[in-house]
Amino acid sequence: MRVIVDMMGGDKAPLEVLRGVVSAAGECSASFVLVGNREELLRIARQYACDISGFEIVHTSSVITMEDDPIAVLRGKKDSSMITGLQMLADGKGDAFVSAGNTGALFTGASLLVKRLSGVGRAAIGTVLPGTAPFLLLDAGANITVSAEYLEQFAVMGSAYMKSMFSISAPVVGLLNNGTEEGKGTPLHVEANHRLRQCRAIRYVGNVEGSEAMFGACDVLVTDGFTGNVFLKALEGTCKWMMKTLKKEYSKNAMTKLSALLFQGSLAEMKHSLDPSEYGGSPILGISKPVIKAHGSSDAKAFKNAILEAIRYAESGVSEEIAKAALDFGASQAEV
Amino acid sequence: MRVIVDMMGGDKAPLEVLRGVVSAAGECSASFVLVGNREELLRIARQYACDISGFEIVHTSSVITMEDDPIAVLRGKKDSSMITGLQMLADGKGDAFVSAGNTGALFTGASLLVKRLSGVGRAAIGTVLPGTAPFLLLDAGANITVSAEYLEQFAVMGSAYMKSMFSISAPVVGLLNNGTEEGKGTPLHVEANHRLRQCRAIRYVGNVEGSEAMFGACDVLVTDGFTGNVFLKALEGTCKWMMKTLKKEYSKNAMTKLSALLFQGSLAEMKHSLDPSEYGGSPILGISKPVIKAHGSSDAKAFKNAILEAIRYAESGVSEEIAKAALDFGASQAEV
Repeated sequence: MRVIVDMMGGDKAPLEVLRGVVSAAGECSASFVLVGNREELLRIARQYACDISGFEIVHTSSVITMEDDPIAVLRGKKDSSMITGLQMLADGKGDAFVSAGNTGALFTGASLLVKRLSGVGRAAIGTVLPGTAPFLLLDAGANITVSAEYLEQFAVMGSAYMKSMFSISAPVVGLLNNGTEEGKGTPLHVEANHRLRQCRAIRYVGNVEGSEAMFGACDVLVTDGFTGNVFLKALEGTCKWMMKTLKKEYSKNAMTKLSALLFQGSLAEMKHSLDPSEYGGSPILGISKPVIKAHGSSDAKAFKNAILEAIRYAESGVSEEIAKAALDFGASQAEV
Repeated sequence: MRVIVDMMGGDKAPLEVLRGVVSAAGECSASFVLVGNREELLRIARQYACDISGFEIVHTSSVITMEDDPIAVLRGKKDSSMITGLQMLADGKGDAFVSAGNTGALFTGASLLVKRLSGVGRAAIGTVLPGTAPFLLLDAGANITVSAEYLEQFAVMGSAYMKSMFSISAPVVGLLNNGTEEGKGTPLHVEANHRLRQCRAIRYVGNVEGSEAMFGACDVLVTDGFTGNVFLKALEGTCKWMMKTLKKEYSKNAMTKLSALLFQGSLAEMKHSLDPSEYGGSPILGISKPVIKAHGSSDAKAFKNAILEAIRYAESGVSEEIAKAALDFGASQAEV
């Protein structure tokens, strides 16, 4: 197992990314290729006493920023760490690629350089979210506009992912909607709901409201990337805000402080179960090889978990499972 | 002040609605007109020892269900409690109308019977949400599809609401989007962002991500009804799930139970501040007279708060403020 890492992507790169790699290397037997500015990496490794002597470094000179246009970078920033890393994956110089950089650029680069699986019209970003049972949200932010056919493909790909990665034999799929009744949502949702109901490749439960998703309504929550992103951030923001409110209440007086002391084990556990960084990175489903997006604000722990997710993803054979599913259900007719 | 109440709408009608009215009547000097099945209301009042001798009852025979088509009920269920109540409001037989019934039917009925304010192309449901500061989400679920022009009108109406009801002299408006950068979102969002930036009638901060909304990013969060509903339910679901997780953790052992005991005042306060029923009902902004939607699952307390919100709304002159704003900014050219 050989993992290619974009060392320059993300708000806290390259230091936290480097620490994440070192930490992951300590927990697995994979080898690593670090793609980024060699001089900067060596300097930081020296400065923070990180031993990177065991890693291969591939030098790149430019960096993709959050403001860069996804399409433009494919031509204009071929020498960036992200595009170089993706090309290396495409060329078989590694088994998986992990990046915390510009989501749009990573998604576009993965789709065009590493290529989509045959039969997949659009790849999608999947994010596992906490709830009474973990569930996969997809698309979590890549495809701002979609067709009903794409949503059906997301359902099939998401089911294959939950089968392989969470050992759920027949994952329940729901369509994120503004009500459970038939006919809810935009014309696109009405059409998608109809298509999903007809689709034999999945176990479809129907429309699912956002409030029910974290209470086990489905294992795979299908939506377009815009709505998925809003849903994801509403969940993240609410968790963050409630933890902040709790903290404020706990520091109120001597009694609440004592209460916090008695509860600290449980609080740590809650924080852990709510922490997106614990869930590792978000795979781009539908790509021929494993490409994992780490959160843009990833610290070392989050990046380490994204790497471990990439390894699990590569070893699990999800890509093969998705390829098979996509062909099986006739997605090969989809617009490519 | 005379409040017209739909006694038959909502999951817990008519009992909890009746209790809500009795409770509200004890806290204000308004008079009430109860619209619903007289026999059933009298029977329930007797059974549960509610004194309703001071209320006028207007008898209606049919009830609008959650499955009813919003347009069809306007013709087919004229004798329902909701349509009768809306017609009474339109005819000046009361100052405000409150209902926990079918949102679509209430929205359509309010728009067509009570009528929109001059210059308002589409009314919108506003919902005040908790955060570091309360903020108004609109549209929270009525307009599944919108135009950029409608979103601009929502911004103007929402600003007028926050000015009148929360005494914020220049409310900050944000557009719910999947990133803060210019150019984010669907073509509709790009156009709306551009329009809002040009709009002199409001104080526009730009695109706002869902995760920042509860941290004071804006006072008015503008979006279409589909996305607004998904956002609202993600927030509600996450709050509910976290409170459930807390409860489970607290009941774990003797130490955590003691911790909960020491923290119970704060917990009650948190629950209170997170409880949507505490925020009263959701006004339909842009209608010529106050129409307030109570949550479909309203219990007596939630319904009482919706009634008190209706009274505040009627007394504050929000409708006049919105009417003035809509005309001022030239919305009179909007498609009606």
